[in-house]
Amino acid sequence: MLGNTFGRMFRVTTCGESYGRALFTIVDGVPPGLKLTNEMIQEELDKRRPGQSELDSPRKETDQVEIVAGMNQEGYTSGAPVGLLVYNVDTQDIHIQQYRDYKDEIRPGHAEYTFFVKYGGYADWCGAGRASGRETVGRVAGGAVAKQILLQEGIEVIGYVKESYGIRAKEMTFEEIKANYRKNELNCPDLEAAERMIEKILEVKDEGDTCGGIIEVIARGVPPGLGEPVFDKLRATIAHGLMSIGAVTGVEVGAGFEAARMKGSECNDLPYIDDEGRVRFRTNNSGGFSGGISNGEDIVVRIAVKPTPTISLPQKTVDIRKMEETTLAPITRRDATICPRIYPVAEAMVMIAITDALMMARGYEGLTRGDEIWKRLRE
Amino acid sequence: MLGNTFGRMFRVTTCGESYGRALFTIVDGVPPGLKLTNEMIQEELDKRRPGQSELDSPRKETDQVEIVAGMNQEGYTSGAPVGLLVYNVDTQDIHIQQYRDYKDEIRPGHAEYTFFVKYGGYADWCGAGRASGRETVGRVAGGAVAKQILLQEGIEVIGYVKESYGIRAKEMTFEEIKANYRKNELNCPDLEAAERMIEKILEVKDEGDTCGGIIEVIARGVPPGLGEPVFDKLRATIAHGLMSIGAVTGVEVGAGFEAARMKGSECNDLPYIDDEGRVRFRTNNSGGFSGGISNGEDIVVRIAVKPTPTISLPQKTVDIRKMEETTLAPITRRDATICPRIYPVAEAMVMIAITDALMMARGYEGLTRGDEIWKRLRE
Amino acid sequence: MLGNTFGRMFRVTTCGESYGRALFTIVDGVPPGLKLTNEMIQEELDKRRPGQSELDSPRKETDQVEIVAGMNQEGYTSGAPVGLLVYNVDTQDIHIQQYRDYKDEIRPGHAEYTFFVKYGGYADWCGAGRASGRETVGRVAGGAVAKQILLQEGIEVIGYVKESYGIRAKEMTFEEIKANYRKNELNCPDLEAAERMIEKILEVKDEGDTCGGIIEVIARGVPPGLGEPVFDKLRATIAHGLMSIGAVTGVEVGAGFEAARMKGSECNDLPYIDDEGRVRFRTNNSGGFSGGISNGEDIVVRIAVKPTPTISLPQKTVDIRKMEETTLAPITRRDATICPRIYPVAEAMVMIAITDALMMARGYEGLTRGDEIWKRLRE
Amino acid sequence: MLGNTFGRMFRVTTCGESYGRALFTIVDGVPPGLKLTNEMIQEELDKRRPGQSELDSPRKETDQVEIVAGMNQEGYTSGAPVGLLVYNVDTQDIHIQQYRDYKDEIRPGHAEYTFFVKYGGYADWCGAGRASGRETVGRVAGGAVAKQILLQEGIEVIGYVKESYGIRAKEMTFEEIKANYRKNELNCPDLEAAERMIEKILEVKDEGDTCGGIIEVIARGVPPGLGEPVFDKLRATIAHGLMSIGAVTGVEVGAGFEAARMKGSECNDLPYIDDEGRVRFRTNNSGGFSGGISNGEDIVVRIAVKPTPTISLPQKTVDIRKMEETTLAPITRRDATICPRIYPVAEAMVMIAITDALMMARGYEGLTRGDEIWKRLRE
Repeated sequence: MLGNTFGRMFRVTTCGESYGRALFTIVDGVPPGLKLTNEMIQEELDKRRPGQSELDSPRKETDQVEIVAGMNQEGYTSGAPVGLLVYNVDTQDIHIQQYRDYKDEIRPGHAEYTFFVKYGGYADWCGAGRASGRETVGRVAGGAVAKQILLQEGIEVIGYVKESYGIRAKEMTFEEIKANYRKNELNCPDLEAAERMIEKILEVKDEGDTCGGIIEVIARGVPPGLGEPVFDKLRATIAHGLMSIGAVTGVEVGAGFEAARMKGSECNDLPYIDDEGRVRFRTNNSGGFSGGISNGEDIVVRIAVKPTPTISLPQKTVDIRKMEETTLAPITRRDATICPRIYPVAEAMVMIAITDALMMARGYEGLTRGDEIWKRLRE
Repeated sequence: MLGNTFGRMFRVTTCGESYGRALFTIVDGVPPGLKLTNEMIQEELDKRRPGQSELDSPRKETDQVEIVAGMNQEGYTSGAPVGLLVYNVDTQDIHIQQYRDYKDEIRPGHAEYTFFVKYGGYADWCGAGRASGRETVGRVAGGAVAKQILLQEGIEVIGYVKESYGIRAKEMTFEEIKANYRKNELNCPDLEAAERMIEKILEVKDEGDTCGGIIEVIARGVPPGLGEPVFDKLRATIAHGLMSIGAVTGVEVGAGFEAARMKGSECNDLPYIDDEGRVRFRTNNSGGFSGGISNGEDIVVRIAVKPTPTISLPQKTVDIRKMEETTLAPITRRDATICPRIYPVAEAMVMIAITDALMMARGYEGLTRGDEIWKRLRE
Repeated sequence: MLGNTFGRMFRVTTCGESYGRALFTIVDGVPPGLKLTNEMIQEELDKRRPGQSELDSPRKETDQVEIVAGMNQEGYTSGAPVGLLVYNVDTQDIHIQQYRDYKDEIRPGHAEYTFFVKYGGYADWCGAGRASGRETVGRVAGGAVAKQILLQEGIEVIGYVKESYGIRAKEMTFEEIKANYRKNELNCPDLEAAERMIEKILEVKDEGDTCGGIIEVIARGVPPGLGEPVFDKLRATIAHGLMSIGAVTGVEVGAGFEAARMKGSECNDLPYIDDEGRVRFRTNNSGGFSGGISNGEDIVVRIAVKPTPTISLPQKTVDIRKMEETTLAPITRRDATICPRIYPVAEAMVMIAITDALMMARGYEGLTRGDEIWKRLRE
Repeated sequence: MLGNTFGRMFRVTTCGESYGRALFTIVDGVPPGLKLTNEMIQEELDKRRPGQSELDSPRKETDQVEIVAGMNQEGYTSGAPVGLLVYNVDTQDIHIQQYRDYKDEIRPGHAEYTFFVKYGGYADWCGAGRASGRETVGRVAGGAVAKQILLQEGIEVIGYVKESYGIRAKEMTFEEIKANYRKNELNCPDLEAAERMIEKILEVKDEGDTCGGIIEVIARGVPPGLGEPVFDKLRATIAHGLMSIGAVTGVEVGAGFEAARMKGSECNDLPYIDDEGRVRFRTNNSGGFSGGISNGEDIVVRIAVKPTPTISLPQKTVDIRKMEETTLAPITRRDATICPRIYPVAEAMVMIAITDALMMARGYEGLTRGDEIWKRLRE
């Protein structure tokens, strides 16, 4: 019932559900003087919008966002919390009726059962309610604000499909990934592998089934020293954010689970001094962390995305009102894989976590691009 | 830049400013199964709406609220965060232009100077921006949700004008106050004193000046044991909430500052056992607290409200851009006293703090009116 | 059960009770490179130590503090949380036995009843347990760390007795107060008034009774712009901290409750430009705040301290186990007034709140006195 | 500098470092009436104590814990925060001198570099300071308190070595694991595999090298419905806790990364009604979660533990003061693998996260075993 806020100093609070009237995001901790337009937010939201390819759900949502609070008359953030409003549009009665028809049946792999336990019959049964992927609109909207702060600090974050149903993309440089990752409907920068991935996904889709994959997120330009020792290491807050995304079943940084099979002498990243006199590391098995704190190398994190639970096959389940076993009918309106739509959500969570850590370190003053008045009053 | 959330388990987060597009409130921690309608929220908002009498600012705002998130299809809360949307309507260019004309001048008694220091020239200069009394729409909207939870628990909270520009209402019982406090435009239950208060306010208004007063809030039916020892005593969180309201310069509970002039033998409230076998206290000098925790007696708290800073008299001030002294012209669109409009805000803060403390004690399960499904799954 | 932490970025967490083994404070958010010694903490603790005059309780506690965590080998803070340990010493069985004798009787004006409601018979009945004034050792220890940070920033905080049992000290300048406030056992800088106050307190003491008073805290040198608009105004977080102290029944800033009896034209503090080209205010009715945010003037806040509830007179009360009315015997080990011992606690809460607000604004980096290595690695 | 608290309603705050005077833990949110002894805490601490086998570091610490706050005179928790004190003993000057000798050299794989960036030369260079594994004493102490609450609720949590340097234990039932996991010095319940694992570890140790592995934690008896939708899913807060442990590079639940290679029809756990009329799931690919909220099945979570970074081989590194490359000498005082000592830390984090979620749901009242007085006062 709680848990709708992420971040401590840069805080994203969201509300809204699948078939509610609107999705809303309040972003607190936005420094003043940031240029912010509806288009900047829209660009990020468009990445996760459904109905963009045959891999996705056919649900039609325009996801038009409007900034309704936090801006001054000149189009800059004023230091007040930014409010972002998106109305739901594809909420016709015909769809609501479909959900009503099997509202007491637990959809396997979904959140229904635990929502019933928490909220009883008051739980929103319509299109998964608050547990729907539609809540990720709020995450991406919040992430879009974080993105503008990070860009100002020279930090770039990209997420992409690293693996789909067992097919893995080749190793590529950051530049190669960045140049290619949005060139296909799967958002996989290895264009050749992507073709094979898509072919395989469509095969699975034709069977009425679904599949998952692995998303990698890379953050470049993160200054060393972000995150707080002990419980709030940046590694931990990023993991928190990513593991809070609906379909995610695992997270790893750098060498990740492979590190468990290495020797210390193989795994340790050795420091050296680069041509500009800065400390760098020769390898990045740690995924950009020393002691869980950012060390200046690329932050590299991967998440396991399970197959979409909604399938076009009959499934045994339980009717929670009658308390009897039953069979859930196949469902056609669904995503064959959620991977191409989940990468912007993963990007958003990483961006929010980094922005929050930056603000812990520097305070909001440290992230404020002060104008003349600001400077004069502080002399 | 932060600080837009109040509460720990029952959390009200707001955004929106004086001349922004909309005011928005997210209420997290709302138990499922609560009947909630736009009308319930509207009723509270209407208490603080401007332009209702000659004591108020003539600003015309309808403050129409819509619940856009957190409800199930049957009109009950679903356990998801509740989203409350109010569009600003009286934001015509003519008013914006007025504010633009003296946007660099510090308005005495207002927040401008400190907003300039924090945000520089990016600060929202229009109608006080986020520091405007309009932000209290979000407080009252959040309080209206708290109110429904409290009513379910048998807790009633009322706020009223106790003193206006030095004229004090007589002592009255809770029932008398409740029966009379909304019978005049000042919201003072001592109807005779209220006439004198209003007469005096209009005199001051005619001089182009303003005045303040004292609001008392009483919470009846609060169970003993709410609030957490040491830093988060209920007395302290209520004080936090009340001292965060724009015009408040003091807060006291029970005998308050008078307690400092009493002897221990006079001030100590003596416990006894009432006819129903419950522990009660013979006096209530503590204002409903023992050790800062609710003790079952009425919670009684008073706030000092300073005179509205906007006056129709010329005032010496500083132009922050030119950095030179100047004279601020008289302003006509203003409240002669803020007291009759601030009482619902004070009520709201007390209601939110109590609901939050209740939820700390009982968890959200303890405040859930479970239906059959809820109970069955928990057996 | 919760509520043992104060602050968001500069966080003081305490544990320990009246007759427990030790009192412990963890201060998180301490910038590295701060010189900190046991003596610095001890000096503050000694201000509130009991048994220093005939006005106080005769309890004998040495309050010897040891810093056991957070320091590097050179005696500077390392950026890790600082741990401060004080063992209780005056916890002999004879005293425990006294408390055991009337452990089921509610002591009027104390926290017992609400502790019984919250914790049942498990509540610590010995010397008020966690509700004892001994928990303030943790507050003062935490405040002593804050003080070192504030001194580094040029901020000075002093608290003193402004009024005792109705006798008020005259108006004095900050310099006069600072020069005189610790010259008598009451810690009242108006030395002449203090004599009358003490005489009166001893009279009341002789009657077996107690009295209270008003403490004023002044913070000089606070930069403008501290505190967060809306719910976390500095005025509100300071009020939270002060109203969490056991005996406090009211708090006011600047003109406080008198502001409710002023006209706007009298109450508004008019800005001007001083000789150094800075914005200042001609009066300080607001107590150092504009919009609840620090405005650069002295922060002036007063608290009402009720008379000590422990008196040497018989009092009617209730035995909570037998659930019957009874009479509590007179108690001799007590403070005639808590005022001379509560001022350092009030100072501490104000210092912690200001330090926390500073850290929200600047981040911990902004409060770090970096050495050469720090600077080199950040270039 | 912050980040030393874990949990929201059940909060563990720690301080203390490798060569500091003491390690201290404050546990806030402990319900009253819990029997708690030094021995109960000691039993858990003994699991992670160093020097217990040839797999561990030879550092000699007794880790004697004393409860110094939060207890009533009868040995039950009183509702006040519990304070747990452990003095460091193996902190002789000879060891400090060793660390001083290479204090400016970055130890590869350790936290030094980022601590230098954050804290400059003030960083505690002695034995890794706050980044040392010694801080986990505080985690385990806090977890030991959580354990008593969970046992009262019928919840059992066990962690064990699932894989070591690539050798994996066979699949076993909860009962088999529980019966065997502490039978060898590695804490691996597959006794046959454990022998091979240990042999391999000693081989690697002889090379002067180190290795890692995978720890699995299982929580049995967790009621369905724990954790909060969206950002604070129990899956996410557990991941946060685990990824905050020093050597952890990945976390997965249930099928984890393998889920990314399954079809929806394979991965979905199908609900059914068991003999007692409860909803259960036929498989547990989700690791005990539906929508990230506990679903009543065993919570199953695995972490990847990297090889201990301290090795007995020379390593190239950087001297941060001289800013030149250098070679770090082999270090002999070290753990060949951290796995057998990290499992109790992982258990602790899972136990704290579950207790915290329980308390969010039920409040502290819901976890209080009230006695007669408690019940009587609440009627």
